[in-house]
Amino acid sequence: MTAVPADWIAVDWGTTHLRAYAMGAAGKLAEASSTEGMGSLGRDQFEPALLRLIEPWLGPGTTRVIACGMVGSRQGWVEAPYRSTPCLPVDPAALLRIETRDPRLAVHIVPGLSQSQPADVMRGEETQIAGALAWMRNFDGVLCLPGTHSKWVQVSAGEVVSFQTCMTGELFALLSTQSVLRHGIGEGWDEAAFQTALSDTLSRPERLASRLFSLRAEGLLAGLPPATARARLSGLLIGMELAATKPYWLGQPVALIGAEALSQTYGSALQTQGITARILPATECTLAGLAAAQEVK
Amino acid sequence: MTAVPADWIAVDWGTTHLRAYAMGAAGKLAEASSTEGMGSLGRDQFEPALLRLIEPWLGPGTTRVIACGMVGSRQGWVEAPYRSTPCLPVDPAALLRIETRDPRLAVHIVPGLSQSQPADVMRGEETQIAGALAWMRNFDGVLCLPGTHSKWVQVSAGEVVSFQTCMTGELFALLSTQSVLRHGIGEGWDEAAFQTALSDTLSRPERLASRLFSLRAEGLLAGLPPATARARLSGLLIGMELAATKPYWLGQPVALIGAEALSQTYGSALQTQGITARILPATECTLAGLAAAQEVK
Repeated sequence: MTAVPADWIAVDWGTTHLRAYAMGAAGKLAEASSTEGMGSLGRDQFEPALLRLIEPWLGPGTTRVIACGMVGSRQGWVEAPYRSTPCLPVDPAALLRIETRDPRLAVHIVPGLSQSQPADVMRGEETQIAGALAWMRNFDGVLCLPGTHSKWVQVSAGEVVSFQTCMTGELFALLSTQSVLRHGIGEGWDEAAFQTALSDTLSRPERLASRLFSLRAEGLLAGLPPATARARLSGLLIGMELAATKPYWLGQPVALIGAEALSQTYGSALQTQGITARILPATECTLAGLAAAQEVK
Repeated sequence: MTAVPADWIAVDWGTTHLRAYAMGAAGKLAEASSTEGMGSLGRDQFEPALLRLIEPWLGPGTTRVIACGMVGSRQGWVEAPYRSTPCLPVDPAALLRIETRDPRLAVHIVPGLSQSQPADVMRGEETQIAGALAWMRNFDGVLCLPGTHSKWVQVSAGEVVSFQTCMTGELFALLSTQSVLRHGIGEGWDEAAFQTALSDTLSRPERLASRLFSLRAEGLLAGLPPATARARLSGLLIGMELAATKPYWLGQPVALIGAEALSQTYGSALQTQGITARILPATECTLAGLAAAQEVK
C-alpha cells in the first residue's frame, strides 16, 4: 500500500471482497484489498472498512470515490435502485451519492441494471460492460461475463439491450464441494473430457439430469480420475449454459470479460461452435468502467 | 419400543438414519429408529448402534437381521459388492453375512446393484424394487423412486433391466438452502407455478440454466412469493428429470415408490404427460423387499 494522494479512488466492492485502487492522471497508482465484503458488514461498518484501505491515498481536500458491486444492494451500504434496460451500462449522472462522516470522502455508487421480462438483475457487471465499451467503441454484439452468476449481454449503440444470467459458477461450486459428487472431484483438467461433456449437453441439454450422477457412479465402478470428473462437470454445466444462451451468441461477435482461466475455458467452448471470442481482462474493464462513471461531475 | 422376541429383524440403514423393525409371522411387531446413520459411524460402531435399537427384540437363540442401504457401502459396516444388472433386484442367495461379536445376531446385508453402461449404482432401492415386485407380480414397466437421488428402473420378468439416477432431490436441497436462491424460497406450494415450470423445462430443458436465477430476480423486482418460488424450482428440476428419463416412462406403466408428498408431486407431473402412475408406500416396499430377501435361508 503506497501513500500517494489519489486524483480519485476506484472501488470494486462485492459480497466477499473489497478492492480499492488509487487513480491518477496516468491510471492506477496503487491498489489494496481486504475480505471486508458487503456480506460481512453491517450498515455502519462500510465507511470504516473503506477508510482502513484508502486513508493513505487521501489528500487535504475531498477525494471522489466511485464504487460498484454489491455495496449498492439492499443488504449493502445504501441501496442504489436498479436502472432499467435498455439503457447505457453506466450513466455518470445517475450515480448515488452516499453521506459519510469523514468530510474528505465523496462516495458515489454505480447502480446495477434490471430487466423486467424475463426478470433479471446485475450489480457490478454494468461497470465492466461500460469499461469494455470504452475500449471497443461501436461494438455491436454480445458480452459474456462468466463467473458465479454468468451474464450474457446484448449490446448495441452503446446500450445494454437485454441480458440473461446463468448460475453456472454457483452450481459448479455447490456440486463439486457440497454434493455427493465432491467425493470424486479433484484438481486438474482433462480437455477432451470437457469437450465431450460440453457437446453432450449442448446438443441434448436434458442429459444433464442423468449425467451428473454418472460422475459419482463412474468414480465408484471405473475409477474415473478426479481431474476428468472435474472437467466433465464443467463441460456439462457450460454446455447447458451455451444451450440456454444460444439466441445470444449464435452468429454474433462475442467478447468475454472474466478471470483469465475461466475466460479461456469459455473461449474454448465457444470455439467448438465456430465463435472466436475476444478476451478482455476483468480488472481493467472494471477500472475503465469506473473511470467512465466519474468522467462527468 | 416394545420388548417382543422377533422372528427376524428388518433394517433400513441409510446415510443419516437407522430404522429397525421387529418382524413376526403377521408382519411388523414393533419399530425403532435413530439418527445413527452410516455417515456418522466408524466401522466398530455399527454393531453397538444396532444393538441399542434392537436388543429388546432378541430372544434366547440367534435372530436373523436383514439390512439394506448405505450400511453396505465402502464407508459402511462391511462393503457388499454391487451385483450387476440385468439381475433380480434381490437374491436371497447373495446376501453378505457380517461377523458380529454378539452371538445372538446373524446379520446379513442386501447388496446394491450396478450398471456399467451408462455407469450407475443403487443401494437400498433394490430392496424397495423387490418389495414392489412382491406385490405386483408380473409387473413389466418402470418404477420411479423419487428422492435425493431419484431412480428410474426398467423392470421385466422380475429383473432389473436398466436404471438411471437423477440428482434432483439433492439439487433442490442445495439450491433452496445453500445457493443465492435461498433468500427467496419459503414454505408452501403453488401448483399452477409448479405445472408451468415443469412444462417449461420438459419441453425446453436448456431453459433450466437461465430460469434458475430468474427466481432470485423476480423475488427482488416483483416480490415473487416464497411458496411460488419453491414450487417453481421443484417444477424446473422435475421437468428436467422427466425430460432426461423420457425414454423410460414414455408409453410405459409406471409405479412410484417414495415419501407420500413427493410421490404425489411426481404423480401429478407424470399426469400432465398422460401417465397415471400407481403410488406404492415406501416403508412397506422396503419391508416386503427385506422379507423377500430372508425367505430362503
